[in-house]
Amino acid sequence: MLILGIDPGIGITGYGLVEARGNRLEAKHHGVIRTKAGEDTANRLCVLHEGLVELLKETAPDVVAVEELFFNTNVTTALTVGQARGVILLTAAQAGVELAEYTPLQVKQTVTGHGRASKQQVGFMVQALLNLKMLPRPDDASDALAIAICHAHLGVSYISRAQGRT
Amino acid sequence: MLILGIDPGIGITGYGLVEARGNRLEAKHHGVIRTKAGEDTANRLCVLHEGLVELLKETAPDVVAVEELFFNTNVTTALTVGQARGVILLTAAQAGVELAEYTPLQVKQTVTGHGRASKQQVGFMVQALLNLKMLPRPDDASDALAIAICHAHLGVSYISRAQGRT
Repeated sequence: MLILGIDPGIGITGYGLVEARGNRLEAKHHGVIRTKAGEDTANRLCVLHEGLVELLKETAPDVVAVEELFFNTNVTTALTVGQARGVILLTAAQAGVELAEYTPLQVKQTVTGHGRASKQQVGFMVQALLNLKMLPRPDDASDALAIAICHAHLGVSYISRAQGRT
Repeated sequence: MLILGIDPGIGITGYGLVEARGNRLEAKHHGVIRTKAGEDTANRLCVLHEGLVELLKETAPDVVAVEELFFNTNVTTALTVGQARGVILLTAAQAGVELAEYTPLQVKQTVTGHGRASKQQVGFMVQALLNLKMLPRPDDASDALAIAICHAHLGVSYISRAQGRT
């Protein structure tokens, strides 16, 4: 199963592609889609949309896992991230790709074992779990890989539990 | 000039088309795009996007005027409205339509003369300014007409001021 994790943002949206085969996880690709700070919001959302369309074509993931909106942020951030997130959900749905959503708490808990882990701790665990030679950079790409790992654990176990019942 | 005012929301997005000729304003069309509460967010954003694509084709506005994000709301609303707003900005930009943004304060001040007007007062003034026989319904459509009126006043005066300088 190919999982594309996405960490939404208007300036930088991180992505990380992870292949899950049984318990084995392999990082295939990670990076960020950047938009220019000076541009108006609508154009930045267009750049994000086009970058994501391209990424979905290139990577052909089975599922897109997106970080759920976090409710402990401030209103300005919420509004801005919300706009980027709306475009990401729309683009994935238009491409017909399955969507999964995880809270930051779920991601941190799955990857590091505790919900209050720092960005650095998440980065170290992503590097270890994916057997990477270097820390994935920038943080946004590392967070996106963490979201993909979270889906590999929670998403897969959910499916196997459901199958176990039938 | 044909102005399409839009009041963004995930459940209901109001729209109102106003034609401005000099000081004369005429309401051409108003209504709402609804999405089902039970559906998942990505599908609701798809419905909103498709409805808006259709609306832009049918109405062919010169400008789309959207209410700016309001910073005195709560985080949950901000995140949800932000997602809908992101899709609206993207869709308008993809259609190549000019975008204008106004704060709720600007809209209320332009339409009613004071920034703390109630929804009802805005509705009455929209009815009076557009010479409508009935109050425009629902509130979301009435608010969208108010945003279009706001652009007719503030947008037009901005352009004429800019032209005056050259």
